[in-house]
Amino acid sequence: MVSRSLHEIFYAESVAVVGASANETKRGYRAVATLLRDRYEGKIYPVNPKLNSVLGIKCYHDILEIQDDIDIALITTPGESVADILEKCGKKNVKGAVIISGGFGELGTKGRQKEREIAAIAAEYNIRIIGPNTSGMISLYNRLNLAGIPDVPKGNIALLSQSGNVALHIITESGLRSEMGFSYYVGVGNEADIRFHEYLKYFEEDPHTKAIVMYVEGMRDGRSFLQQAYQTTRKKPIVLLKSGRSATGMRSAGSHTGSLAGISEVSRTAFRRAGIITIDNLDELYPVTETLASLPPLDKNRVAILADGGGHATVAADMLSDYGVDIPQLNEKTQQRLSEILPPNASLKNPVDVAGGTDENPSIFADCAKVILNDPSIDGLLIVGLFGGYSIRFADKLRFMEEDAAHQMGKLVKKIEKPIILQSLYTLKNTHALELLRYYGIPVYESLGIACKCVSSLSQYGRYLHHTQRRPVHFVLNWGQKSKSECIEIIKKARSEGRGALLETEAKQIIALHKAPVVEEKIATDAEQAVKLAKKIGGKVVLKIVSQDILHKSDAGGVKVNLETEDEVRAAFDKIISNVKEYKPEADIKGCLVSPMADKGVEIIIGTKIDDQFGPVIMVGLGGILVEVLKDVAFRVLPITRTSAKGMLSDIKSAPILDGVRGEPPVDKNAIVNLLLTVSEIIEAYPDIQEMDLNPVIARNDGLSIVDARIILKKEQIDE
Amino acid sequence: MVSRSLHEIFYAESVAVVGASANETKRGYRAVATLLRDRYEGKIYPVNPKLNSVLGIKCYHDILEIQDDIDIALITTPGESVADILEKCGKKNVKGAVIISGGFGELGTKGRQKEREIAAIAAEYNIRIIGPNTSGMISLYNRLNLAGIPDVPKGNIALLSQSGNVALHIITESGLRSEMGFSYYVGVGNEADIRFHEYLKYFEEDPHTKAIVMYVEGMRDGRSFLQQAYQTTRKKPIVLLKSGRSATGMRSAGSHTGSLAGISEVSRTAFRRAGIITIDNLDELYPVTETLASLPPLDKNRVAILADGGGHATVAADMLSDYGVDIPQLNEKTQQRLSEILPPNASLKNPVDVAGGTDENPSIFADCAKVILNDPSIDGLLIVGLFGGYSIRFADKLRFMEEDAAHQMGKLVKKIEKPIILQSLYTLKNTHALELLRYYGIPVYESLGIACKCVSSLSQYGRYLHHTQRRPVHFVLNWGQKSKSECIEIIKKARSEGRGALLETEAKQIIALHKAPVVEEKIATDAEQAVKLAKKIGGKVVLKIVSQDILHKSDAGGVKVNLETEDEVRAAFDKIISNVKEYKPEADIKGCLVSPMADKGVEIIIGTKIDDQFGPVIMVGLGGILVEVLKDVAFRVLPITRTSAKGMLSDIKSAPILDGVRGEPPVDKNAIVNLLLTVSEIIEAYPDIQEMDLNPVIARNDGLSIVDARIILKKEQIDE
Repeated sequence: MVSRSLHEIFYAESVAVVGASANETKRGYRAVATLLRDRYEGKIYPVNPKLNSVLGIKCYHDILEIQDDIDIALITTPGESVADILEKCGKKNVKGAVIISGGFGELGTKGRQKEREIAAIAAEYNIRIIGPNTSGMISLYNRLNLAGIPDVPKGNIALLSQSGNVALHIITESGLRSEMGFSYYVGVGNEADIRFHEYLKYFEEDPHTKAIVMYVEGMRDGRSFLQQAYQTTRKKPIVLLKSGRSATGMRSAGSHTGSLAGISEVSRTAFRRAGIITIDNLDELYPVTETLASLPPLDKNRVAILADGGGHATVAADMLSDYGVDIPQLNEKTQQRLSEILPPNASLKNPVDVAGGTDENPSIFADCAKVILNDPSIDGLLIVGLFGGYSIRFADKLRFMEEDAAHQMGKLVKKIEKPIILQSLYTLKNTHALELLRYYGIPVYESLGIACKCVSSLSQYGRYLHHTQRRPVHFVLNWGQKSKSECIEIIKKARSEGRGALLETEAKQIIALHKAPVVEEKIATDAEQAVKLAKKIGGKVVLKIVSQDILHKSDAGGVKVNLETEDEVRAAFDKIISNVKEYKPEADIKGCLVSPMADKGVEIIIGTKIDDQFGPVIMVGLGGILVEVLKDVAFRVLPITRTSAKGMLSDIKSAPILDGVRGEPPVDKNAIVNLLLTVSEIIEAYPDIQEMDLNPVIARNDGLSIVDARIILKKEQIDE
Repeated sequence: MVSRSLHEIFYAESVAVVGASANETKRGYRAVATLLRDRYEGKIYPVNPKLNSVLGIKCYHDILEIQDDIDIALITTPGESVADILEKCGKKNVKGAVIISGGFGELGTKGRQKEREIAAIAAEYNIRIIGPNTSGMISLYNRLNLAGIPDVPKGNIALLSQSGNVALHIITESGLRSEMGFSYYVGVGNEADIRFHEYLKYFEEDPHTKAIVMYVEGMRDGRSFLQQAYQTTRKKPIVLLKSGRSATGMRSAGSHTGSLAGISEVSRTAFRRAGIITIDNLDELYPVTETLASLPPLDKNRVAILADGGGHATVAADMLSDYGVDIPQLNEKTQQRLSEILPPNASLKNPVDVAGGTDENPSIFADCAKVILNDPSIDGLLIVGLFGGYSIRFADKLRFMEEDAAHQMGKLVKKIEKPIILQSLYTLKNTHALELLRYYGIPVYESLGIACKCVSSLSQYGRYLHHTQRRPVHFVLNWGQKSKSECIEIIKKARSEGRGALLETEAKQIIALHKAPVVEEKIATDAEQAVKLAKKIGGKVVLKIVSQDILHKSDAGGVKVNLETEDEVRAAFDKIISNVKEYKPEADIKGCLVSPMADKGVEIIIGTKIDDQFGPVIMVGLGGILVEVLKDVAFRVLPITRTSAKGMLSDIKSAPILDGVRGEPPVDKNAIVNLLLTVSEIIEAYPDIQEMDLNPVIARNDGLSIVDARIILKKEQIDE
């Protein structure tokens, strides 16, 4: 059975309001009232066993009493009642349900069980669910407002939010400050059925939607979301605020590579790579979306600033620079043309400061804009200062010239396909000139910070679209695809012995079987054997304890390095054994691993973990101290391609070290990239693996050495 | 002659407007009009050779025609005329001049000369100058508005700005969005006479001023400003936006330590240490000042969030965490009390989410606020969400309950002396409840980002006041005080030989004479002497070229390390000489310095430079790679105390390395601190030094080795 399309829900022609109410503070009252107020053209069926009418409309005592077909049901009754109501909806062939009711997954384990129950009922009857625990849904082009929020402006932004108040915030802001409105609002709720990626897919193809804005607290299926976002962002911008950065924070972790970053770092990178514009400050969420929905993105990253005062120009230049936006000098010809328009003391290079040149005629702003945007080295324009308020600041008659300028700039943007964003001190006065700019799709902001953020978002999105052609979509995990039977045996053996982690030797064996370079090492069970193995290796050696009970070998005194003579090796062996026995008397000791000392090089650390939202992710960092003290690491969602492995290396701040600093030769980056790909392959091959940890790996000019390796298994065996 | 106090200018009882005009777009018209409109109570004397009256007031043809005494003159005429006018002002015994006219220092060298000329005239007649190139001055409590900006609200904030438009921005914002106004506005201009620090000093003692807000583009005397700010911030908060971060950027530098950071990093640290709240985003400048002027700072750093929706609460928690503000759990008793007020599904820990508990009675916000602020582990409260708009969102009658809550919270803040800041979605509606909060000095912001920034500023200022007692004022450079005659001789000798830099040996000699540990090293003039010196040292040695013509020894192939045998030393000597001869055939080679190889340890780099605004500054960083690749350094304005030297070490992100990571012993931090103090002493002792550079210094557990040292002299000899 194919799931119903979301279209059937957004464009429902009849709605049952289950839990309709006559009490005006109740949700079930506001729902009916809002539908009437917004002049919904479909049929409305209030349902409440105790009422005969609501707001003058006949009220049914039971959903089954309704004779006509019902497309969707809005359910506002207490959580316990939802399962029964859904059953009835199923019998009535209802296509979708918007479940406001709470008391499900948000309450923990018990609630999750109830949620699975209602999801199962819905699946049985092919009812699509929005929610539960949602603040509602609005389909503006169907005048279908099931969120009880009045006066939602219609427009081209699709809004997905997991907080009703944040949705209210964004909708209110839109009404007060912009000409742009919404195509849909969905309170996504607990995602019992319809998940984020399905909404994305719908909006991607929807003709009313130009941009998507999202407030996310937690996703049920981050991986499918990424997969979909990769497609959607090629056509329409997605702007997203993910909250809960601080609460999740650093994870308390058993594995020291896994513990290096909270989920936020993983999501930030994953979202960025999928072309999503992420926002940290709620104040910027709507403006950035509005800008991306209204204006062409920047072709390149080169912006001009036009100001009627040095102060605003300088502050804007500082902020755009912070965002990495280029503010290049205007070319000679452009400067020449500007000099013909502006007074002699004007600054012509960029930022352009009109230096009083508009005081008596603000329409000169439009002349300057035309000259500047015709400069081929400029991709967009930020105008800052007093425009829109010249009639207030200087003389009333100036407003007609401002309005003329607004018309000219509006048409200029359409014609030349380069964006203009305007910051005005007089935004709150909303003069006609500012209204006109908005009419033409030029956003107007009071805040300089927000205006600059919007410019930077046009740049970020433009750059993404430039690069997107060569970027593959790669979030499908083909579990087990490249597995090897020897490796499966190793894992089975560990399981059968009740071990939750592989021995170092086993981990390295798996790596070797996947063709990454691992030095041959043997276990010595007594000191004399250690001496013999050391002699065979030649040069300096390292001894490391091998025991399933010792996870952190150094802490247990289980590692001795730099051993050269027979005596040193013998003494080290005995010392390790006695250290470990003291550290953990019950430890099952298999012996000591004898390995050659790795040559000097750059220390690398590679780790994987299972992220709550995205599943397996991989991390790489440089040098023990750089990782441990400075947390300088890069993440990717697995599996990775060669391109993303390379990208990881350049994401690290300390990356220049790999290219050789202070006369050191560059290390073999290709070998690191290959090792990252091997790790990716191993994780994909064995779903049993919870975490893998190569720490340290020594990278040199002529290759690399994996000095230590750890693999931790999932608590329960996976059959996939 | 003692300069006149600023008081005589701010409280002038008569004003001459030189350049008064009858044309309403002109500054000279607006000046007179604004004085009349603001009902200035002193006497107004328009001056213009061509007019007999302006706005109904008698106009004089020349300032000397005026019979009465004149306190101050506003000069709006072209720059060329200013010197003459000032002469006349001097003859009329005018006390101060506000010089709007441009054409001075802002135009470069020639303008600077003209500026010095007018400063000299002013000094001769004891006229104090505001400007030139200022947008004017307003003294609100004297109704003296010489800035031509109408409707400036009176209050307790003193505003200093180097941009007229930024001043207009802040004043407009204040009028639209707050109940707080200004005590003074000064367009500081070019600081020809009165500089930033003098204004600070005045405001510090002024009874009308509670906080100072500054927009700065460049300071003439950053050092005096810091000195004064240290005093002022103990009594009144200073909030400052310094623009031009990007334009100055990294300095193109000859010395590689000096080039590591632009001026902004230096000023940021210097301002922070002086207790100044620095702001990067113009949007935050006024709100933060308003908050600091209205509310008590946070006693400690512990804040509670009270919200009527999970979304806003989570986003606020994220942002406050980003600012380093603690959001601790409320204690058991507080949670218990809240549970008695709020519904069962409310979150009680912190953030507190009322979960619908205020929907029917928003006065419960005040009850919650009382309970929360009585928790001894909480120092302040941020309320976020819909408060102030319950009548709009839910039902009209709720507004009376909101107003009740506003009264209660206003009185609570006064009584308990802990701040409340409120973010409301309905700020723009400015309902009576929000107006009441402002009346009580509780700021209300629409922006969640700004509200959080304000909370963090209360925390920052509170922490500063806690620490300020033990912090000495230390920006006085006692040039030459601890100089030593041997060192002066070394510098003289270099000067006499026409050298702009000292030899490494000379630099080390100066360091040794100032009692820092320098290993004894000698210069070998031929290979055999090098072998002899190496033998005497014993162990491995380093050979380094000694030549005044080679600044970067490694680049010239002038350094060989790790030399052990006689042959190695001999070969190294010859190779260095031939390398250098090839690199720079005309180089005057004095020989090779033979030094012992420094033991392993942590690499440190110490440098000094002369900052444009603050004079001598010092920098310290860790490890060649950390400094070069990651720019992980700390700055201080010189001279430094032991406390600030210690502070520098803890400011470095990689500081944990000094305490020993991965089993390494901690290094002798005290030795580094001593060396920083020695460098500070040396810079203070010899004003001839332009830059000093110790790179690298190897710090170990048992002390440190200065491996290389460089001293560059100022271009011209200094006699101080």
